[in-house]
Amino acid sequence: MSDTTEQKDILRGGQFLVKETSCDDVFTPEDFNEEQKMMRDSVKEFVDREIIPHKERFEKKDYALTEEIMQKAGELGFLGVAVPEEYDGLGMGFVSTMLVCDYISGATGSIATAFGAHTGIGTMPITLYGTEEQKKKYVPKLATGEWFGAYCLTEPGAGSDANSGKTKAVLSDDEKYYSISGQKMWISNAGFANVFIVFARIEDDKNITGFIVENDKENGISFGEEEKKLGIHSSSTRQVFFNETKVPVENMLAGRGEGFKIAMNALNVGRIKLAAACLDAQRRVTENAVKYANERVQFKTPIAQFGAIKQKLAEMATSAYVGESASYRAAKNIEDRIHLRMESGNSHSEAELKGVEEYAIECSILKVACSEDIQHCSDEGIQIFGGMGFSADTPMEAAWRDARISRIYEGTNEINRMLSVGMLVKKAMKGHVDLLGPAQAVGEELMGIPSFDKPDYSELFAEEKEMIKKLKKVFLMVAGSAVQKFGPQLEEHQQLLLAASDILIEVYMAESAILRTEKNAKRFGEDTQKEQIAMSQLYLYNAVEKINAKAKEGIISFAEGDELRMMLMGLKRFTKYDNFPNVVKLRTEIADKLIAENKYCF
Amino acid sequence: MSDTTEQKDILRGGQFLVKETSCDDVFTPEDFNEEQKMMRDSVKEFVDREIIPHKERFEKKDYALTEEIMQKAGELGFLGVAVPEEYDGLGMGFVSTMLVCDYISGATGSIATAFGAHTGIGTMPITLYGTEEQKKKYVPKLATGEWFGAYCLTEPGAGSDANSGKTKAVLSDDEKYYSISGQKMWISNAGFANVFIVFARIEDDKNITGFIVENDKENGISFGEEEKKLGIHSSSTRQVFFNETKVPVENMLAGRGEGFKIAMNALNVGRIKLAAACLDAQRRVTENAVKYANERVQFKTPIAQFGAIKQKLAEMATSAYVGESASYRAAKNIEDRIHLRMESGNSHSEAELKGVEEYAIECSILKVACSEDIQHCSDEGIQIFGGMGFSADTPMEAAWRDARISRIYEGTNEINRMLSVGMLVKKAMKGHVDLLGPAQAVGEELMGIPSFDKPDYSELFAEEKEMIKKLKKVFLMVAGSAVQKFGPQLEEHQQLLLAASDILIEVYMAESAILRTEKNAKRFGEDTQKEQIAMSQLYLYNAVEKINAKAKEGIISFAEGDELRMMLMGLKRFTKYDNFPNVVKLRTEIADKLIAENKYCF
Ligand SMILES: Cc1cc2nc3c(=O)[nH]c(=O)nc-3n(C[C@H](O)[C@H](O)[C@H](O)COP(=O)(O)OP(=O)(O)OC[C@H]3O[C@@H](n4cnc5c(N)ncnc54)[C@H](O)[C@@H]3O)c2cc1C
Ligand SMILES: Cc1cc2nc3c(=O)[nH]c(=O)nc-3n(C[C@H](O)[C@H](O)[C@H](O)COP(=O)(O)OP(=O)(O)OC[C@H]3O[C@@H](n4cnc5c(N)ncnc54)[C@H](O)[C@@H]3O)c2cc1C
Repeated sequence: MSDTTEQKDILRGGQFLVKETSCDDVFTPEDFNEEQKMMRDSVKEFVDREIIPHKERFEKKDYALTEEIMQKAGELGFLGVAVPEEYDGLGMGFVSTMLVCDYISGATGSIATAFGAHTGIGTMPITLYGTEEQKKKYVPKLATGEWFGAYCLTEPGAGSDANSGKTKAVLSDDEKYYSISGQKMWISNAGFANVFIVFARIEDDKNITGFIVENDKENGISFGEEEKKLGIHSSSTRQVFFNETKVPVENMLAGRGEGFKIAMNALNVGRIKLAAACLDAQRRVTENAVKYANERVQFKTPIAQFGAIKQKLAEMATSAYVGESASYRAAKNIEDRIHLRMESGNSHSEAELKGVEEYAIECSILKVACSEDIQHCSDEGIQIFGGMGFSADTPMEAAWRDARISRIYEGTNEINRMLSVGMLVKKAMKGHVDLLGPAQAVGEELMGIPSFDKPDYSELFAEEKEMIKKLKKVFLMVAGSAVQKFGPQLEEHQQLLLAASDILIEVYMAESAILRTEKNAKRFGEDTQKEQIAMSQLYLYNAVEKINAKAKEGIISFAEGDELRMMLMGLKRFTKYDNFPNVVKLRTEIADKLIAENKYCF
Repeated sequence: MSDTTEQKDILRGGQFLVKETSCDDVFTPEDFNEEQKMMRDSVKEFVDREIIPHKERFEKKDYALTEEIMQKAGELGFLGVAVPEEYDGLGMGFVSTMLVCDYISGATGSIATAFGAHTGIGTMPITLYGTEEQKKKYVPKLATGEWFGAYCLTEPGAGSDANSGKTKAVLSDDEKYYSISGQKMWISNAGFANVFIVFARIEDDKNITGFIVENDKENGISFGEEEKKLGIHSSSTRQVFFNETKVPVENMLAGRGEGFKIAMNALNVGRIKLAAACLDAQRRVTENAVKYANERVQFKTPIAQFGAIKQKLAEMATSAYVGESASYRAAKNIEDRIHLRMESGNSHSEAELKGVEEYAIECSILKVACSEDIQHCSDEGIQIFGGMGFSADTPMEAAWRDARISRIYEGTNEINRMLSVGMLVKKAMKGHVDLLGPAQAVGEELMGIPSFDKPDYSELFAEEKEMIKKLKKVFLMVAGSAVQKFGPQLEEHQQLLLAASDILIEVYMAESAILRTEKNAKRFGEDTQKEQIAMSQLYLYNAVEKINAKAKEGIISFAEGDELRMMLMGLKRFTKYDNFPNVVKLRTEIADKLIAENKYCF
C-alpha cells in the first residue's frame, strides 16, 4: 500500500467537480501492489475453478451451492478482506476490499449478491458500529464464513423510504431484552444466514434502531418461501418474520434511534462495492462476446469483422474500462482518507465510517453508472450472440437478468441519482465544497466575451482535459441556476435533479478514465496506451453528447428569455470541440485490438 | 373500409422522406371502422379472458396451453383475418390483420410468437406464393387452426445469412418427389406444427427453394428438445431435423430457386406485424405501471406523484402512442396499395406481395422502433415496481424478458437498420424515390444564406412540421454525402449506415405521431388532444436530440475541413428550435393524465 498518503492533496468528496485533479494523484488498477495483484489473481482463479464450471446449477436455483461457495470463499479469507486482523480478518485496505468484491462477482449475480449482502451490509454494521463485545462475538465468525450475515431493512411498506418500517422493538419489563415483531422483505441470504442485522422502531421514535439478531427458530423467527426472481437465481431471498423475537439489550447496534444512520452508512459502502461488483461481469461479458464474434461466421465473414459488431464491442470494453477507472480512483480516495483519519486519532471504525461517508456522492455516482453499464453491456452481449443470446445455453442471458437487480437494490438508481446531487448541494451549503465561488465565476464567464485564441492542443489529452473543465461548468451553470431559482424547493423538481445528476455522473466517469490513461501514458509510454486513449476519448465524446442533452433539457425547463439564450449559448460554448474525435475510427481501433487479442485486454 | 383509395395520393415506400404528407392522408387508430373496432374489442376480450388469467402457466413452459389458446383463436377466426374468404379466412384488409396481431400479442410473448409464426411466416408463404392446389389443400386448415404452421429457414450456420443454409433437396429419379435432408434451428411452433415451410437448396443453386412439408414422423422428421430460453417460455422452439424427408414435387413453393425471395417477402410482412405485436404489450405495461404507481406509497406519497416516476410514465405512454401512429399509418398505406394493384389487375396474392414489398423500408423501421420501445417500456416498468419488478409475481419481468426476442428475430435490429437505408438507396438508384433532387437542394441550401425571417408558428404543430422538414434534410445531407463519398462501398461503413438509419427511423416515427394528432385535433378539437399534442411534441424533441447526435457522429467520421464545417452548420440549422418545448412540463402533463385516468388512455 502506498505510504505517501499525507503528502497528497486528497480530494474531498464531491470536490472533483470544482478542482482539477492531476493524473499523478489518481490511483489506477495499474497501481495495484504485489499483494493486491496476488489477491486479484487468487480470486479470479477461485471463480474460474469453483463458479464457472457450475454456472448452470446457479441458474437452477441451487441455493446450497451458493452457501457452499461462500464457505469456500470464507476458508480462503475472501470474506474477511475488510475485517481487521484482530477479528480474524485480513485487515486489508479499501482498495483490496473493492478488488475482491470486483473479481468474485464476475461470474454470477447470485454470488455477487450473497457476497455483497454478507460482507457489506451483513457484516459491516457490526465492524463499524459494534461494541467491542459485539465485534468479538460475531465478527470473527462472519469474517471466516463460519457464520453468514443478512441485513433486514426493507419491509413490504418500507423500501426506498427505509425509515418508515413498522417492525417494532419493545423493551421487556426487566429491561434485559427487546422483543422484535415485524415483517422484513427481500432479505438476501435469509435462507442460510446465522445473524441478522435487523432494523426496528422503539416506541414512536423518529428513527429506527439496529439490532444484531441471531437466527433461532425457537425465538419467533420464520421465513417466507424463496422469492421467484427474474435473476440471481441462486441468491436466497426470503421474507423474514419476527414474532416477539427476544434480543438481549446488549445486541443493540450503536444507540437507540441510530439505525437509520447505520442503514444509510452501510448503504454508502454497499453502493461503491456494488459498482465494483459490476466490473468483472462487464469484462467477462465483453470477453465472451469477442470470442463468439471471432468464431461466428455469417456471410462468409466472422461477425467480429462487421462494423455493427465492432461498434458494440468497443462500447462494451470502454464502459468496463471507465467503470474500473472511476471505481478504483474513488476506492483509493476512501482508503487514503481512512488513513488520514486514523493518523489523526480516529478509531479504525470511526475512520472507515467517515472515510466512506465523505465520498457518498461518488458512491452513488458509481452505483448508478456501473449498474447501468453492465446492463447495457450484457444487452449488447445478447445481441452479438443473435438467437443464441436468447438461449440459456450461452452466458449472456443470465448476465442480463442478473444485471437487472443492481439498478434496484442498495437504493434504486433514481434515489441514488437524486441523492448524488442533493448531497452535493448540501455539502456546498455547509461549505465543505465551494460550489458557489466557481458557479459565480461561470456566471461571469457567461457574460463575458469568449476567447478566440487557438489553444495549443499538442499534448496528450490537452483538448479532452479542457473539455472536462468546461463540462464541470455546465453542471455549475445548470445546477447553480436551479438552486437559485428553486431554493429548497429544488428537491421537488425531480426531473431536473435527475438531469443534473446525469451530468455529474458523466463528468466523474469521463475524467477518471482520462486521468488513468494519462497517468499510464506518462509512465508506460503513449504507444502502450493507444486503445486506452481511444476509449477515454470515445467515452468523453459520448459524455459530452449526453451532458449536452441533459443540460439542455434542464435549461429549457426553467429558463426563459435572455437567461435561456445566455445559458444555451454557454452550453454550446462549454460542450464545443475544437477538433472532433472521429468516433467511428476510435471504435474500430478499440474493437480491432479486442478482436486481435480475442479477450478483454485492457 | 375506406373506398376513397383512388383519390388519395398514396405515398410510395420510402417517399415519406422527401414528400410532405397531409394529415388528411394518414390513417390513424381513430379511423378504425365499426368492423375493426368490433374485431379489436373481441380480441381484447379474448386475451383478458383466456390468456391473462393463465399468465403464470405461460411462464412455466406450458406449451400445451399455447396450443390450446391457438386453437381457440382459430375457432374465433383470429388466425384467418388475412386469409381470403375462399380459403375459409375472414378476408379482411391489412389494417385488420395488424389490429388482431396487435391486440392478441399484448399479454404474453409466447402467444405473440406462436401467433406470428403461424399466421405470418407459417401461413402466408402459401397464401402468397402457393398454387391454387396448394392453397386449397393447406390454407383453410391453417386459417381455422385445424392445423398449425411453422417456418424453417434458420440453420445452425445460417441465421442472418439466411440464403446460406446447407439443407439439401434432391430430386428423386422418378422426378416425383424431393428428398430433403438438413438441420433447422430455432423453429417456433415446431412442437405442434402440422405443416412446415422448409427452405432447402437444390443441387448447387445460388438461391434456396421453398417447400411445403407435412409433419410426419414416419417421413424422416424429428425434433430437438425444447430450447431453454430467456423469454417467451411457452412458445415452442425446437430444432427440426429432416432426414431424407420425401416431399412431392407439387409441394414446391413458387419456382426452383425462388425460396430466398419468398423468405425475404415473408419477413417484410413479419416485420410490420412484429411491430404491431409490440404495441399492446406497451399499453398493458404502461397501464400496469400507472396502476401500481398510483397505489404504491413511499414517503407518505403515491410514487406516481414523484417527478422521477412521471417522467417514466410519460415516456412509456408516448412511445406506445407513437408506435401505434406509425404502425397503422404504414398498414393503411399497404392496404391501399394492395387495393390499387388489385384494381389494376393484379391477383390478390400478387397485389399483397407487391403492396407489402413497396413498404419494406417502413416495415424495417417499425420493427426496429417498436421492438426497442417495448424493451425500454418494460424496463421502466420494472423500475417503477422497484423490488417487486424483479419478482415473477408481477407482470413486469416477463414482459421484459419476452420483449428481448423481438430485437433478434425477423432479422436482427442491426440487419433491419442497415436494410432500411440500403433499400432506400436502392430505390433512389432505381428512380423509385427521388432522393437525388432533394439532396441537391439541401446541398444548395447549405451554401446559401439562411433566412432570418421569424416564421409564423401560430397554428398547431407549425413549428413541429417545419422541424420534420428540416430533419428530413438532415438525413439527405448525411446520407447524400455518404453515398457521394463512398459509392457502393457505403455498405461496408456499417456504423455510418446504422447512424443514418436511426435518423430515418426517428423521422418516420415523429412525423407519424404529429400527423395523427393533427388529424384528430382538426376533427375532434384541439382541446380533446391536449396530451396527444404533448406526446407528439415530446417525441419530436427526443427525436431531434437523437438525430442531432447520430448525424454529428456520422459527419465527423467522414467529413473534413470546409465540408465538415458546412455540414455541422447545416446540422445546427436543421435541428434548431425557434421555441423549445418545455419537455419537463410536457412529461408532467402526460403523466398527470395517465395518473388521473389510472390506465393507458390514449
Ligand atoms: C433481489 C433483491 C434483494 C434484496 N436484498 C435486500 C436485503 O438483503 N436487505 C434489505 O433490507 N433489502 C433488500 N432488498 C430490497 C431493496 O433494497 C428494495 O427493493 C429497494 O430499496 C427499493 O425499494 P422498493 O422495492 O420498496 O421500491 P419502492 O421504494 O416502492 O420504489 C418503487 C419506485 O418508486 C421510486 N421511488 C421511491 N421513492 C421515490 C422518491 N422519493 N422519489 C422518486 N422516486 C421514488 C423508486 O425509484 C422506484 O422506481 C432486496 C430487493 C431485491 C429485489
Ligand atoms: C426464440 C426464437 C425463435 C425463432 N423462430 C424462428 C422460426 O420460427 N423460423 C426460423 O427460420 N428462424 C427462427 N429464429 C431464428 C432467428 O430468425 C435468427 O436467430 C435471427 O435471424 C438471427 O440469426 P442468428 O441467430 O444466426 O444470428 P447471427 O446471424 O449469427 O447474428 C449474430 C450477430 O451478428 C450480427 N450480424 C449478422 N450478420 C451481420 C452483417 N452482415 N452485418 C452486421 N451484423 C451482422 C447480427 O445482427 C447479430 O448481432 C428464431 C430465433 C429465436 C431465438
